[in-house]
Amino acid sequence: MTKGRLEAFSDGVIAIIITIMVLEIRVPHGSDIVALQPLVPIFLTYILSFVYLGIYWNNHHHLFQAAHHVDGAVLWANLHLLFWLSLVPFVTGWMGENHFASWPVALYGLVMVCAGLAYFILVRTLVSRHGPNSTLALALGRDFKGKVSPLLYAIAIPLAFFQAWVSCALYVLVAIIWLIPDRRIEREMAHGST
Amino acid sequence: MTKGRLEAFSDGVIAIIITIMVLEIRVPHGSDIVALQPLVPIFLTYILSFVYLGIYWNNHHHLFQAAHHVDGAVLWANLHLLFWLSLVPFVTGWMGENHFASWPVALYGLVMVCAGLAYFILVRTLVSRHGPNSTLALALGRDFKGKVSPLLYAIAIPLAFFQAWVSCALYVLVAIIWLIPDRRIEREMAHGST
Amino acid sequence: MTKGRLEAFSDGVIAIIITIMVLEIRVPHGSDIVALQPLVPIFLTYILSFVYLGIYWNNHHHLFQAAHHVDGAVLWANLHLLFWLSLVPFVTGWMGENHFASWPVALYGLVMVCAGLAYFILVRTLVSRHGPNSTLALALGRDFKGKVSPLLYAIAIPLAFFQAWVSCALYVLVAIIWLIPDRRIEREMAHGST
Amino acid sequence: MTKGRLEAFSDGVIAIIITIMVLEIRVPHGSDIVALQPLVPIFLTYILSFVYLGIYWNNHHHLFQAAHHVDGAVLWANLHLLFWLSLVPFVTGWMGENHFASWPVALYGLVMVCAGLAYFILVRTLVSRHGPNSTLALALGRDFKGKVSPLLYAIAIPLAFFQAWVSCALYVLVAIIWLIPDRRIEREMAHGST
Repeated sequence: MTKGRLEAFSDGVIAIIITIMVLEIRVPHGSDIVALQPLVPIFLTYILSFVYLGIYWNNHHHLFQAAHHVDGAVLWANLHLLFWLSLVPFVTGWMGENHFASWPVALYGLVMVCAGLAYFILVRTLVSRHGPNSTLALALGRDFKGKVSPLLYAIAIPLAFFQAWVSCALYVLVAIIWLIPDRRIEREMAHGST
Repeated sequence: MTKGRLEAFSDGVIAIIITIMVLEIRVPHGSDIVALQPLVPIFLTYILSFVYLGIYWNNHHHLFQAAHHVDGAVLWANLHLLFWLSLVPFVTGWMGENHFASWPVALYGLVMVCAGLAYFILVRTLVSRHGPNSTLALALGRDFKGKVSPLLYAIAIPLAFFQAWVSCALYVLVAIIWLIPDRRIEREMAHGST
Repeated sequence: MTKGRLEAFSDGVIAIIITIMVLEIRVPHGSDIVALQPLVPIFLTYILSFVYLGIYWNNHHHLFQAAHHVDGAVLWANLHLLFWLSLVPFVTGWMGENHFASWPVALYGLVMVCAGLAYFILVRTLVSRHGPNSTLALALGRDFKGKVSPLLYAIAIPLAFFQAWVSCALYVLVAIIWLIPDRRIEREMAHGST
Repeated sequence: MTKGRLEAFSDGVIAIIITIMVLEIRVPHGSDIVALQPLVPIFLTYILSFVYLGIYWNNHHHLFQAAHHVDGAVLWANLHLLFWLSLVPFVTGWMGENHFASWPVALYGLVMVCAGLAYFILVRTLVSRHGPNSTLALALGRDFKGKVSPLLYAIAIPLAFFQAWVSCALYVLVAIIWLIPDRRIEREMAHGST
């Protein structure tokens, strides 16, 4: 089975998710600049979610670049990932409209953890089909980012009920970690821990 | 005529259908966890419909993997399938918002029966173009699932007016039957009937 | 310049147009079957527009199957067609919500005429790049349908202000003419005119 | 890394952006032609934004036609462009609903400047990977349009607070400059400056 359609379908779903989020930023009735003020938190969460989805698309792209064959289990592991990503517009809207209140912030993190878990399952499913010595397995390497992200979420989610803005800062931190090109951050971290 | 564009167009339509359903889960105004409570039935129907559409996309993928040539009749049989699938967000929303009331539950089943019928017509149209000894025809096999599903719908739809939750349970059952990889269920069923 | 991306972009736009139309069919608040009654005209216009867009996608598919090279002018002729098609959800919604009132019915026809004209321009642009003896030009043939459709629209649009339902019937007739496979209708018409 | 998925994803996002803009043109309740009158400014901004997005898609198409290899930096430069383009429906809606008031007109121009800047960064990122003597770099040439557009925006944005309609006229002018095929305008401008 070729991977072409799986890639095309995932591209379509992620493209739609990333775009319909902007529909949550409803056009205000006033024509003054102050009419945009209540939209600021919504806009900020939009940027954050846009970056998260961009990271997922980027990683998905890299992952399937290295993959050669897919089967039914891979298709479903992929759909499972898309399911959690499809909930991002909802939690983005809830968090943005409630000015980063505790529950919305916690739920945002929870959906992100589930998406991360789904991505992890997808990777494992693919690696098990390509073998531990495949270029796919080697390309994934030690997966430092994949290990530190759930840790940061595990801190951020309970913290949402005490200091929600710290949770948000941690979500931003996770995004930054993923944005920095791979080798550089690993080296910096290695230096830091020495 | 190549099948590439038919696949790409179908991928696009199914990707959009699967994603706009999430727009039915409207962001609540409250920031408390109880604000999410009325969304629970909407969320459950969303999961069910997501899985159904995932199954259709998976089967569509497998079907056209085995197909070699398409013509005008195949294009229209495919559009006919996409038409019924495009109604899924509407019936999903109606069923979810009315907490699984009789009519919405029955209509949900009806749209699923029509989609199933449209898929059956698409398969027949393709097989008639490839011949009964083609890999396509052989790959489809006895089609146990395709025969048991309409039977379950035929029970579930009238039952919606008496015990709507049993109808819903039957819809879930159909989804599970399709989710289980092919060979296993057929063997289990063969053992069961001996 | 390859035609692949033009096809993919057009597939995407048409797939979205065909799918967002369903968003006009808003989920009713009642759970009874009578709650669906006001949606009947909206649903009927949805079917009509779905078929029209299906016809356009089918023809677009056939057209670019025969085309070999595209340039800037073709890209813009194609975008021009997509522009008029993008207005279909709006006129569909207006016609459906106003139970086939005169102005909405006339505007529906007008948008269809413009889309037809845009398609005609696209065909001419492509033929001028491939030459009158190309397989593209030969495949298009006498284009009986392309000539009879504007005629029917020219009758239907002014008629909307007197007998709107006759206009609608003419729109349905145009759709049927395009749905019937090419050769059959041309032969039937040839017989009829003898 | 192949460029196929980057193109497909960009096609998807731009196709969705260009299509969801039409959702801002809400179906009016009246069935008379006067019911459409308040939609005129919304419709005009829709045309303008449709043309802008068409230009971006066209240029994107040409750009990646000449590109051969992409990497992580190119993927992010591309996502950055898509981010600004994703804001076009919002500013289009705000400008259209407020009948070209000062702030919305200025913000429209600002988003366009940012999109233009993002496109510039994408071009530079690609050229730096292909070298100054690559067909990509040569195909881009002197980039007259890319230099005159920010100039026109720099005039249009502050002008929105005095004569908003002149700003709009300048936005239209930018679109026209990009619509005219390359060589012709450069020659005309060369003649004009002699």
